[in-house]
Parts: sequence; structure tokens; C-alpha cells
Amino acid sequence: MNVYGEHINRLIEEFHKLPGIGGKSAQRLAFYIIGQKEERAEALANAILAARRGVKYCSVCCALTDVDPCAICSNTKRDSRTIMVVEDSRDMAAYERTNEYIGNYHVLHGAISPMNGVGPNDLRIKELLSRVNDNEVDEIILATNPNVEGEATAMYISRLLKPLELNVTRIAHGVPVGGDLEFVDDITLARSLEGRRPILS
Amino acid sequence: MNVYGEHINRLIEEFHKLPGIGGKSAQRLAFYIIGQKEERAEALANAILAARRGVKYCSVCCALTDVDPCAICSNTKRDSRTIMVVEDSRDMAAYERTNEYIGNYHVLHGAISPMNGVGPNDLRIKELLSRVNDNEVDEIILATNPNVEGEATAMYISRLLKPLELNVTRIAHGVPVGGDLEFVDDITLARSLEGRRPILS
Repeated sequence: MNVYGEHINRLIEEFHKLPGIGGKSAQRLAFYIIGQKEERAEALANAILAARRGVKYCSVCCALTDVDPCAICSNTKRDSRTIMVVEDSRDMAAYERTNEYIGNYHVLHGAISPMNGVGPNDLRIKELLSRVNDNEVDEIILATNPNVEGEATAMYISRLLKPLELNVTRIAHGVPVGGDLEFVDDITLARSLEGRRPILS
Repeated sequence: MNVYGEHINRLIEEFHKLPGIGGKSAQRLAFYIIGQKEERAEALANAILAARRGVKYCSVCCALTDVDPCAICSNTKRDSRTIMVVEDSRDMAAYERTNEYIGNYHVLHGAISPMNGVGPNDLRIKELLSRVNDNEVDEIILATNPNVEGEATAMYISRLLKPLELNVTRIAHGVPVGGDLEFVDDITLARSLEGRRPILS
């Protein structure tokens, strides 16, 4: 039974298509929008269109950006000889929040996943290779996710880079800071032992 | 540090303003939109604008609707002499899903809540009274929420309707179907006892 009418139903449907938004949340969002001032609804609609239309890929690091090259690639204070390879822009933002990294990035936009039909050619790996060939690079840090796809992608890229005799590193695996050893899974515990380091005192 | 650029940040902010959408969800939604075809982003943006601009209040029952009077009020097969008073359109949709109710509705758009500055004049109570005065009505079912605000609103309306000598009822309180008595709160248990009915066998 069509209680709400076409406009509301269509808005509920569109919200429902978004990831992580169930039927109830979609309804709540739709009624929230209808209850807001028209300017608020317009601000959201315009932000959606502007982001979808205005965002492009950085021609250097392939990150999503408003300006090309992106703010990080065009920042001459950063170390352009170190490139951290991440799966997507959110991972880049996560490392930026640490304020510990001053090198540049390269965004793959995914990880190799034969199950999901994602092969090396679907990622920005070609761009990484030509970037490494055309510029002076000291170190490539492979910071893909610590899961099966991410590990496979890191392994694949490290093999491609081997002939170039670069310093290729992988981010450390180990127990997360603030965690409780009791609840850490076996593989992570094994990795934390394998990757143990001398205490410098 | 502005990693994402203005367009993406603005979209994340706009999503973050929606109820129940936290920072991480807002990011995920923004990147999902950017990764979709432009038509999909346009469909969402247009649905938001169309719903906000095209939806109006039914002149009979005050429900949100595309056409006035709404589909329920203009359905002559329904019993217009019974009016169920609900807080919002979602409650109406919930009762419609039961397929048990064939009367009409009246949507208050809220409940009396002095804490939130919502008084009787902010609700569609005037409209209910003139509707009851101008039409033949047999029964008013007060189906506001079973919480403090909803009970206060039901009480307020029932007092207003008293002089009209109508049949004014309140939906039953009791144990929910499929529930486990052990986990039902004390007040609900007390209400279930108070409202006990003879078994017709």
C-alpha cells in the first residue's frame, strides 16, 4: 500500500540504496529532509552534485581532489621521494591524521580481489610504476589493508618494483596500541612476535 | 589538515548533519556517491529536492502527501467515521502495514512536550477539532506513542473532545506479541494486568 505517495517513496528508495542505510533509517532520513527548511535540502542536494561532478583524480597520486595536483602532491615541504601506497583516499586521510608522515601518497582505488573481479589492471598500479620511473624515489611504503586482498596487492606490487632496486617496505603488523593481548587473534600475535624489535634504552 | 578538498568535505559535512549519521558513515556515504555514475548522484539529489518541494499536507488529515486530499482520505471505501490520531506519518504507515484498520487518520506532527517547547498549538489539534465538528464521526482512536509525551497528548485531546460526546478510545497497552514476560518492564506488566480481557471460547 502506497501510504506516503510517490515523492516520499522515491526519496526513501534512494536513501535505501546507500550503503549501510536500512529501510527504517531511509524513512527517518526522508522525513527529516522533508521537515527541514528548503535551503537545507538544497544544500545537501547541491553538495551531492558538486562532489560528484567537481571531484577529479590527482594526476600525480590518483587521490580524489578538487585541484590537480592535489594539496599534498603540490606541497613542496613534503618529501616527494617517499611514496606511501594506500587502497583509497580514506586510508590516506587516516595516515594524515597521525601527523607522523611527511612523504607523498599513491592511491590504488582498491585491492586485487579475484573474488570480486578486481585485477591489477583495475587499480592505479601502472600510474605508480610510471611515477617511480619518471621521478627520483627512495622508498615505497606499502600500506594496503592488513587483510587477504591487501596482502596480495602488497606482494604483487613489491614484485613489480623489485627490478627497480628501490627500498620497498610494508607497514608493521602487530598488537594494536591500547589493546588487550588476551583478545588479540592468533595470527596477529604470531606477527607481533615475528616482528619484534630491540628495546632502545 | 584538509586532505579531501572542499567538495568532498562539504558533502561529508552535509551527510554528517543528518540524524544517526556519524563521522565515519558520512565519509563512507560521500565516497560512495563519488564512486557512482553521475545519474545515480543526480537521482538522489533530485529525489531530495522533489520530496522537499513537492510534498504537502493533506487538507483533511494533515498527513504528508503528493496529492490533496491524500490517497487514504480520498478512498471512499474506507470508513471516514473512524479517525485514528497518530503523531506522525510513519505511525500511520505502521498501522497501514497491519492491514487491520480501514478507518481514516489524523496526523498531529508531534506530541505535546514542554521540555522541547512543543505545545498544543504546535500540533494539528485545531484541525482535528474542526474536522470532528464538521463531519459525522463515531470514534476517535488515540494512537499517540506509549511514552510520557504521547500519553499527555492523548489525555489532552481526550479532554478537548469530551464535550462532543464521541467515542474516544486509546490503543491497548500490554505485553508485545512474541515477547518474553521475563524481559517486559514493570509498568507494561502492570498495564497488561489492568487491561486483561475475558477469553472468548
